[in-house]
Amino acid sequence: MGANKAVVLLSGGLDSATAAAIAKDQGFELYCLSFSYGQKQVVELEKARRLAGFFAAREHLVLNLDLGRIGGSALTDKQLEVPKEGSDLEREEVIPITYVPSRNTIFIAHAAAWAEVVGARDIFLGVNALDYSGYPDCRPEFITALERALNLGTRAGIEADDGGWLRLRTPLIDLRKSEIIRRGIALGVDYGMTISCYDPDAAGRPCGFCDSCRLRRKAFAEAGIADPAGG
Amino acid sequence: MGANKAVVLLSGGLDSATAAAIAKDQGFELYCLSFSYGQKQVVELEKARRLAGFFAAREHLVLNLDLGRIGGSALTDKQLEVPKEGSDLEREEVIPITYVPSRNTIFIAHAAAWAEVVGARDIFLGVNALDYSGYPDCRPEFITALERALNLGTRAGIEADDGGWLRLRTPLIDLRKSEIIRRGIALGVDYGMTISCYDPDAAGRPCGFCDSCRLRRKAFAEAGIADPAGG
Repeated sequence: MGANKAVVLLSGGLDSATAAAIAKDQGFELYCLSFSYGQKQVVELEKARRLAGFFAAREHLVLNLDLGRIGGSALTDKQLEVPKEGSDLEREEVIPITYVPSRNTIFIAHAAAWAEVVGARDIFLGVNALDYSGYPDCRPEFITALERALNLGTRAGIEADDGGWLRLRTPLIDLRKSEIIRRGIALGVDYGMTISCYDPDAAGRPCGFCDSCRLRRKAFAEAGIADPAGG
Repeated sequence: MGANKAVVLLSGGLDSATAAAIAKDQGFELYCLSFSYGQKQVVELEKARRLAGFFAAREHLVLNLDLGRIGGSALTDKQLEVPKEGSDLEREEVIPITYVPSRNTIFIAHAAAWAEVVGARDIFLGVNALDYSGYPDCRPEFITALERALNLGTRAGIEADDGGWLRLRTPLIDLRKSEIIRRGIALGVDYGMTISCYDPDAAGRPCGFCDSCRLRRKAFAEAGIADPAGG
């Protein structure tokens, strides 16, 4: 009997790389899923490809989405600039302009579809609700509600004996980002293969000033570890 | 003050055309949303375009999705044939092979994203849980659960004073298909502009034998009305 299969949402960032390492460590065979959705940081897909190879994923699927045509986010709309002043993180309660409407619902729904087709029931997500950008679709209550909806709206969910086919696994959700890094390093993750910037330059180098760069730098500093990707 | 805005999922079939007519009749300004997702019945998008014009939609957005690369459905996978024997409808409790994994979650999540961007809070869906193909993502309990998840996972949901920004409106969910047709005709819908086939020929003519063609024929017969699209 083969290993259990898991779908892993792999963005190319440090959180999803760590989630993949955790799934791998738990013995799952990995089906890695990434999206080209019109993001400015499309260089992350090259990182995701390398990470999928690093984790010896059984498959790596990169799907196209038209989120750029919906807009409403500085990550997908060329008219909106990614903030570089760190202001978003200081204003709590405010959802930053880098939030992409419905992004995690759309990503996770695709993961559920693929999970059903390949016969996986575990979906690993690198979402984190502690040192994060304040996106509503990273909060535990959202993940729980979406898991319920997906179990009600899929063939596998209906046919499962125990009424709960799909499990959305969020091993990082309660960790500080510095703890995520320590966990990943213990599991052998090479964070030099990841990128965490919302607005890299044409050569794929992180800007150093967006919220995501700031969070990453702070986390490596707290962990007392040099970032192998520089920064 | 302008009219309230509504996003309408418009497939080009008779249910979504009727849902659009109901939204229009309620005074909403329509933002129609369709998807090119690798479906064999892609001719429906031409119908959707004409319907959006007929309803004088403010905008009609046709987004691309990669569901064909996930597969698992006779609607998107060329290796799987659309059943023509009517067997699926006779076997209750069985989800037919034309079911597309996570389709409605993905469609509705895009609609929620667009609603947030244009400032709509109502999303009209032509889902029907009575005379339908038995898809789990048409059931009322799924729609309610997804509405809850989307309100927890979106900026507009978080920021809404009353804790419920987004409303998934399903005016057809408890109607027989013949009642849907009568309702639409009372509202002036020209069903000659719609198509309800899972597997039309190259010229865009309905096959006449798939579940969707059978349901449509039965419904027009029950309504005592000739189908203006033929069949």
